[in-house]
Order: sequence, then C-alpha cells, then structure tokens
Amino acid sequence: MMPEMTMMQSRPLDALNKARNKKVVVELKGGRMYSGVLNAFDIHINVVLDQADELENGAVKRKLGTIFLRGDNIIMISPA
Amino acid sequence: MMPEMTMMQSRPLDALNKARNKKVVVELKGGRMYSGVLNAFDIHINVVLDQADELENGAVKRKLGTIFLRGDNIIMISPA
Amino acid sequence: MMPEMTMMQSRPLDALNKARNKKVVVELKGGRMYSGVLNAFDIHINVVLDQADELENGAVKRKLGTIFLRGDNIIMISPA
Amino acid sequence: MMPEMTMMQSRPLDALNKARNKKVVVELKGGRMYSGVLNAFDIHINVVLDQADELENGAVKRKLGTIFLRGDNIIMISPA
Amino acid sequence: MMPEMTMMQSRPLDALNKARNKKVVVELKGGRMYSGVLNAFDIHINVVLDQADELENGAVKRKLGTIFLRGDNIIMISPA
Amino acid sequence: MMPEMTMMQSRPLDALNKARNKKVVVELKGGRMYSGVLNAFDIHINVVLDQADELENGAVKRKLGTIFLRGDNIIMISPA
Amino acid sequence: MMPEMTMMQSRPLDALNKARNKKVVVELKGGRMYSGVLNAFDIHINVVLDQADELENGAVKRKLGTIFLRGDNIIMISPA
Repeated sequence: MMPEMTMMQSRPLDALNKARNKKVVVELKGGRMYSGVLNAFDIHINVVLDQADELENGAVKRKLGTIFLRGDNIIMISPA
Repeated sequence: MMPEMTMMQSRPLDALNKARNKKVVVELKGGRMYSGVLNAFDIHINVVLDQADELENGAVKRKLGTIFLRGDNIIMISPA
Repeated sequence: MMPEMTMMQSRPLDALNKARNKKVVVELKGGRMYSGVLNAFDIHINVVLDQADELENGAVKRKLGTIFLRGDNIIMISPA
Repeated sequence: MMPEMTMMQSRPLDALNKARNKKVVVELKGGRMYSGVLNAFDIHINVVLDQADELENGAVKRKLGTIFLRGDNIIMISPA
Repeated sequence: MMPEMTMMQSRPLDALNKARNKKVVVELKGGRMYSGVLNAFDIHINVVLDQADELENGAVKRKLGTIFLRGDNIIMISPA
Repeated sequence: MMPEMTMMQSRPLDALNKARNKKVVVELKGGRMYSGVLNAFDIHINVVLDQADELENGAVKRKLGTIFLRGDNIIMISPA
Repeated sequence: MMPEMTMMQSRPLDALNKARNKKVVVELKGGRMYSGVLNAFDIHINVVLDQADELENGAVKRKLGTIFLRGDNIIMISPA
C-alpha cells in the first residue's frame, strides 16, 4: 500500500528546493554541462542558474551570467 | 517541506520576464543560435525575438527581423 | 513579480497573428523550408500556408498551393 | 490584440476539413509519402486515407486501400 | 466553417473500429511490421493483435500469438 | 458509428491485465528485451516485472529480480 | 473485465515505493547507469538518489552525493 501521505513525505522537487541558492551542476542531453547557483525551477524542470558557467571536461569553458535552461533537455542535477 | 509560497517566490519564467525587451541569445537543439530582443514568451517557451540575427561561431550569419521560435527546440536562453 | 496582465501584453501567438495573410518562411526540423502566405495557425503551431513553395538554398524547389504543416516539426517562423 | 473571434476565423483544421474527400499527399518523418482521399482526421492529426498509395520519387510504389496514419509522424499534408 | 457534427461524421478511430476482428498490418518506427487480427485499440493507438506475426520483407519471421504494441511507435495501420 | 460500449468491450489494457502474473517478453526501443512475470502496469505502460531476465539473442544475459521499466521506452509486450 | 480495484492492487509506483530507502540501479537512455539509495520519485519517474555513484562497466566511475534524475531519460530501475 502507498498512502498519499507517505508519497508526499519525500518528492523529487523537495530535493531541488533544498538545493535552491546553492551551487549545482546541470547535465544536458548531448553532454553539455553547466554549473551555477540554482535560482529557480518549476515542475517541467525548467531551471534558472545564476553566475552560470558552461563546463567542458570539468573546466570552465564560458561564463554566462544568469541562464534559463528548458527542462526537457536536462538529464541530471547534482551538487557542484 | 516546500510551502507553495516559497516555490512561487522565484520561478524560471520570472527570469525570462526580467529579460523582456533586453537582448538575449537563444540556443536551439542541433546547435543553432539566435540573438535578438526578447519580445514575448509563453509557458511552452515559445519565444519571439525582435531584430533577430542568426549566429554562427559568434558572428552574425543572417539578419532576420522578428522571428517566432517554437519552444520545444530551445535549450538555453541567456543574456547577449 | 510577473502579474498576469504584464505577461498577457505580448504573447508569441500575437506575433503570428500579426503575420497572418503576410508572406512568411517556415523552417522545419531536418532543414526543410517553406515560404507562403500565413493562412492559419493554432496553439500547437500547426500552420496553414497558401501559395506555398518548398525552398532549397533560398530558391523555389516545388510549388505546392495550400499546405498544412504539423506544428511539432516547426523550428522557426520568420518574415519572408 | 488577438480577439478570440479573429483567431477562430481561420484554423489549421479548417484547411484539412476543406480537403476532406479530396486527394491529398501526406509526407511523414523519414521521407515516406502517401497519396489518397482524405477520409478522416482528428486534433492529433491522425489521418485516414482511402484508395491510398505509397509513393516513391513521385511514382506509386504500393497500393494500400484504406490506411490509418498516426499523427505524430506527419510533417505535411498538401493537395495531390 | 467546421460544425462539430461534420467533424464527428468520420473520425480516424472509426476506421480502426471497422477493422476490428479483421487482419491488419501495423508498421512501426524503425521499419518493423506486424500482421494480426486487430483485437483492441485506444486513443493513444495502443494496439492488441491476436495471431500476430512479425514480418520481414513481406514474409513471416516470427509467430507471436497475442501482442500489445505501444501506440507511440506506430506509423501506419493498413488492411492485410 | 462507434458506440462507447462497443469500444469498451476490448481495450488494449485488458490484454495486459490478462497477462498479469504470467510470463511476458518486453521489447524496448533500441533492441533490449526483458522477460519476467508481469506484476504491474499503468496507463503510461510503465511495467513491473518479477523474476526478470535481460535477454540477448533469445538467451538470458543478466538475472535482475524485480524491475521497473518506464513505459515510453516500450515497443511490444508479448507472451514469453 | 478489469475492475478498477483489481488494477489498483498492484501498480508500478508501488514497486518503486517498496524500493524507497533501498539501494537501486537506474539506467538511462544512452547507456548511463547510476546506483544510489532511492530517496524520492514522482509520477513522471523523476528520481532522487542519495549516496549516488555513476557506474561504468559495473564499477564506480564518479561519486556524486544526492542527485536528481529527470524521469524522461530513465529506462529501468532495478535493485542494486
């Protein structure tokens, strides 16, 4: 049995909410990676990063400022 | 816990709204890039750019005027 | 803050509506391009073009009359 | 401004409705083409063609009778 | 004008309903083909075939019994 | 005509329900195949198999126990 | 017949719920694999893993901590 309450205790978006205002790494389909401070997200996993960097082989390739990433390209969000 | 109010404070579309009437760069799946003034967007991330340019290797390849970009092709929107 | 009114002032479909009965170029995923008079569109960005031409390298490849293009293939709609 | 009435005047499905019982060509993702009499369609652009032919290089490759084409494969519907 | 009644007269799923309990060929994305008796379908075009065969170059490759095919892989359903 | 009752008589998920607690083979996009006892499914065709094996060329490649397969990867479910 | 109760007895998300707080392996489209403790999931199969490792050929490639995986990339979730 899976009472609704139990399921509500721990939802994936709660983990993103805990990461708000913290530095994260976002990996996209096709291999691109961005690091930045998680400013905002929504249920589509659209994400806004502040002080964002595009990464290549773990190094900063481009400094980008505030970026909007469309959710359907995102594979993983992890702590930086 | 993630109270609804907290989540509402900072949503990804707010970042796009702040960028309205400012110059942005839009990157599409497949590598194409457009710069232009962000005129309009919606929840599907359909976007209208005014004074739009198609970019290639950072240089202007084509001047396009006002363009409509369908949201599902968009990977990233960043400040120009 | 993004009051609903502000967001409503300028929506992507408004730009398409302004282009109605004018000549546009529609670019599809995979590289195909069509020009024609924008007769109709809907929220899925399904589009009907009158006096449509298939373009290749900027030149007319085929004259097609009235065509229906399914929205999910469309990348960009721009003035002709 | 885009009053709801204006948008309703000309919708993409109206163009398909006009083509009902007429001969059309349907192009699919991946390049396949079918001609036939447009018998039915719905909002997903699922389509039924009567007296359908599979085309290759503009010539009839296979005679198929009545066929059901799932909408999400369709790129374009045009007059035959 | 497209009165709701007119559109209802002939819908794509009606054609599938007429094919129920008859032998059909189902073509999938990627080229696979199955023949069998159309037992059931739904609005997603999920399909159940009885006495199903996998076909290759028009010949029976595998006898499969009753199979469930998920709709989003289906390109075409035609009479066998 | 397709009365609602007629359509209800035989739905694709009924076939899956009959296969519950029986051994099935699940084929995924990209060619992977799993066999196992059908424990659960839902309208997205998410599937849980018990005593699951990954198959390669018809032979067991890996024994996996209970697995959850996300529906959108599934092409076919057939009796083992 | 498939009474609603019967279908409810065993749903795919129940299997995920049983795996909560246990170690699982998540396989993504494109071949990537992650192991970790299943912290949270939702109906989109968005998943949060604690103490997550990226795996390559069955060995740990990267230690990642808590990660969010977007559901639409997931193929399979199995016990570790």
